[in-house]
Amino acid sequence: MLHCFLLRHLRYSTPKPLSSFRRSHSLYPLTIREIFEQKPLNQSVNLTGYLLNIRKQKTHYFLDLFDGSLTNNQKHLQVVAPLNAHPSLPHLTYGCSVNIQGKLIPSDHPKQEYEFIAEQIKLINSCDASNYPFKPKSNETLVTLRQDEHLRLRSKLSQAIFRLRSQLMYSIHEYFQEQRFIQIQTPCLTRNDCEGGGETFRIQPYKSRTTGKDKEYFDTQVYLTVSGQLHLETAANGFGRVYTLNPTFRADKNFSRFHLAEFWMLEVEVAGLTQLDKLLDIYVHLLRTVAGQVHKKCSEEYKHLLTHNIQPKYLEQLLNQTEFPRITYQQAVEYLRKSADFHQFSDNDDFTRAHEHYLCETVMNNQAFFIINYPKKLKPFYMLVNEDESTVANFDFIFPSIGELSGGSLREHRYEQFKLCLDELDITRDLQWYLDLRRFGGLPTGGFGLGIERFLMALTGIDNVRDVILFPRYYRHCDA
Amino acid sequence: MLHCFLLRHLRYSTPKPLSSFRRSHSLYPLTIREIFEQKPLNQSVNLTGYLLNIRKQKTHYFLDLFDGSLTNNQKHLQVVAPLNAHPSLPHLTYGCSVNIQGKLIPSDHPKQEYEFIAEQIKLINSCDASNYPFKPKSNETLVTLRQDEHLRLRSKLSQAIFRLRSQLMYSIHEYFQEQRFIQIQTPCLTRNDCEGGGETFRIQPYKSRTTGKDKEYFDTQVYLTVSGQLHLETAANGFGRVYTLNPTFRADKNFSRFHLAEFWMLEVEVAGLTQLDKLLDIYVHLLRTVAGQVHKKCSEEYKHLLTHNIQPKYLEQLLNQTEFPRITYQQAVEYLRKSADFHQFSDNDDFTRAHEHYLCETVMNNQAFFIINYPKKLKPFYMLVNEDESTVANFDFIFPSIGELSGGSLREHRYEQFKLCLDELDITRDLQWYLDLRRFGGLPTGGFGLGIERFLMALTGIDNVRDVILFPRYYRHCDA
Repeated sequence: MLHCFLLRHLRYSTPKPLSSFRRSHSLYPLTIREIFEQKPLNQSVNLTGYLLNIRKQKTHYFLDLFDGSLTNNQKHLQVVAPLNAHPSLPHLTYGCSVNIQGKLIPSDHPKQEYEFIAEQIKLINSCDASNYPFKPKSNETLVTLRQDEHLRLRSKLSQAIFRLRSQLMYSIHEYFQEQRFIQIQTPCLTRNDCEGGGETFRIQPYKSRTTGKDKEYFDTQVYLTVSGQLHLETAANGFGRVYTLNPTFRADKNFSRFHLAEFWMLEVEVAGLTQLDKLLDIYVHLLRTVAGQVHKKCSEEYKHLLTHNIQPKYLEQLLNQTEFPRITYQQAVEYLRKSADFHQFSDNDDFTRAHEHYLCETVMNNQAFFIINYPKKLKPFYMLVNEDESTVANFDFIFPSIGELSGGSLREHRYEQFKLCLDELDITRDLQWYLDLRRFGGLPTGGFGLGIERFLMALTGIDNVRDVILFPRYYRHCDA
Repeated sequence: MLHCFLLRHLRYSTPKPLSSFRRSHSLYPLTIREIFEQKPLNQSVNLTGYLLNIRKQKTHYFLDLFDGSLTNNQKHLQVVAPLNAHPSLPHLTYGCSVNIQGKLIPSDHPKQEYEFIAEQIKLINSCDASNYPFKPKSNETLVTLRQDEHLRLRSKLSQAIFRLRSQLMYSIHEYFQEQRFIQIQTPCLTRNDCEGGGETFRIQPYKSRTTGKDKEYFDTQVYLTVSGQLHLETAANGFGRVYTLNPTFRADKNFSRFHLAEFWMLEVEVAGLTQLDKLLDIYVHLLRTVAGQVHKKCSEEYKHLLTHNIQPKYLEQLLNQTEFPRITYQQAVEYLRKSADFHQFSDNDDFTRAHEHYLCETVMNNQAFFIINYPKKLKPFYMLVNEDESTVANFDFIFPSIGELSGGSLREHRYEQFKLCLDELDITRDLQWYLDLRRFGGLPTGGFGLGIERFLMALTGIDNVRDVILFPRYYRHCDA
């Protein structure tokens, strides 16, 4: 009781919000966005940023200052600097970084309300402009930006993309907070390599810095995770509604525009689910709500992408369709067999990208759709076997131009059946902990994974996954 | 213009909020928490969960149903099930999972307003109760829970801890959203192994599933990241205010209660910072705001921890101190030399845990404090060298009972100086991309890292890091 009392009576003086100009100014370095919003007239302030344009006029210089704080990438702060007032002025070049002390004052010009007058300019770093990949007024493309992963966040195009990515991540957390999910961090290092889903990376004995010798660190072979699902299920059995948003690793030797060796994946697991349809409803609700938030919050970013002719071709589907078609694996096979190209499709074969593409483009008229109830033998061991004993309660969500955006299923929660299944695969010993969930009264759960980079492609219309992750890692490529 | 037009006119029908009982009921499986909140009187509903207690009375059974949805861990849903009404009832044991169809009705009893009457009970999985580690009414300890990482989220003690962890993660995102930071995901796979900060794990050539042979995947030696800071600086140079909340890896051969091989780290980087004091102000504001949010949102969880005698001994400091003492490395050395134990402390030696402990407990009277301006030679190459040319503009934040909670610094942003420094260390070629930031007009930046698990220890008073991460990985230990 004493402790309870102490806790309840902890006095807590809330840190002051930073809404007022003065407070914000004093805690974080002031940004151009705050100048535009707060209009601190006649106060001497300091700004740090890059010069994007330097124009000499008769009585002064015009400097365009950029600091990445504005979401409207067409705008800069135009700084007016009196001629000869600053010895460094003639030496300033495109791309250099400066600190400017100055004041916002009411303008005499009929076309603008305010102007920012420099009082003192300090050069921080000059810019090796001839080697700098981004030229004044040039229009960078995604392909050229990819050559300079470490510099591309200084380009306005990449800024728009990564602002949108940041908003997407936050909107996902908001959604699950609203729905009372618990966020779990599943481990990257795991002893499982048997979850299916591609080749895995292994952890090497580490080289000791002191002796230079290779040493084992763990007492077992350890891999980088290909999915946090199995671990996440332990949490769904405790909390009911859980998710994890983590890096995931696949060692697939694949150069395609869809594949990364390290990518971010949202994984969701919900207890109490016994009908596949309900899982699909949850999935669609998540997609639509998050897409809606991103669309609402990132209007400036979408506008900027359009100036580069990057069109969110499939965003409208995500925003407005309350239902997506749901066909069974068997129905999908029948559609394929009606086509000239795929009429010889064999029973129980897996779909290739070509099959998915045909189904989505031709059969579904470029509409995203679900394929459900795959043959058991095509899918991992943990999926719930349907009453027909030959198919599983799973889905793949096929998206135009991308292919598989997500996969999910109900899980085989029945202890006896599941033990037999693990025994047959000879993995009971490795997965005793996972089987334990069922042994001690496990709940029926269902869930899915959603690759963040592919979701970003769906949201933006960008068609290469390497453009939506800052430092892409893929086959033969780990720069910086 | 056409595309702009299209985008602006995308009709977007907002997905309905899930506040009403009916809607929530139909999308997500209903939880006990929702029953308590929404009181759906006389409606037949379905609940899935575990039985924690089964008491037979003359005319009925009382069943305690638990589904992990309640933040108040002392409460359950008490289900009244008529005797003989359900053939499975006599077979139900502690820990089994059930689906109960029933109704909430007004109660006749003077002491309770409502009661939940079961209409139909289905056994999902029985529980091997004799081997199940959590016994009825037993009071698990953190030490016993650690033996069953995969099951511990079914215990109420671990539930309180991991609810608090989930809230902490969300509160961090909220803070940075409010402060207009951009969230970056820095890579786990990196070619840098020269950032300092301990031993590193290497990625092994992967074993091909098809041929079984070992093959190189990347064109270079690749490591697991020990810090995202260098990558994050590329983003700070674009956006100004950025953070990353990612897994981080250290191969230190350390069994201590503070060390993990895989842990989560918040890293923050802010452009335009030129004074170390400002960086410390930002750090304290973050700590206090986030601690305040967690304290506010997790009162039930804190109460539950207190029932296990887990006291947040140092939470009041985090909530109420607006300033923490700031002493220089040199002052810290002088304090140490005044003590009997450490009077022979050598110039330019690094502090051990014993030194930090003495300073915090004895000199600072168990108050958290900053040590700033370490000798250059004790710290990594990227820290800003002070005007004295011998110290760097850095800080370590020392926390009672934990030791170093965070480290941070201003970064050496001056191109010429920094190039000389990299040349001297012979790492210019490896870090050309990082040097490039300065070559092309880089901004002065500063930042810090904050280990999430240690922060959780500071917030809760839990004294072993293995209790606040779901699947801890450390030397010789990678279970599940």
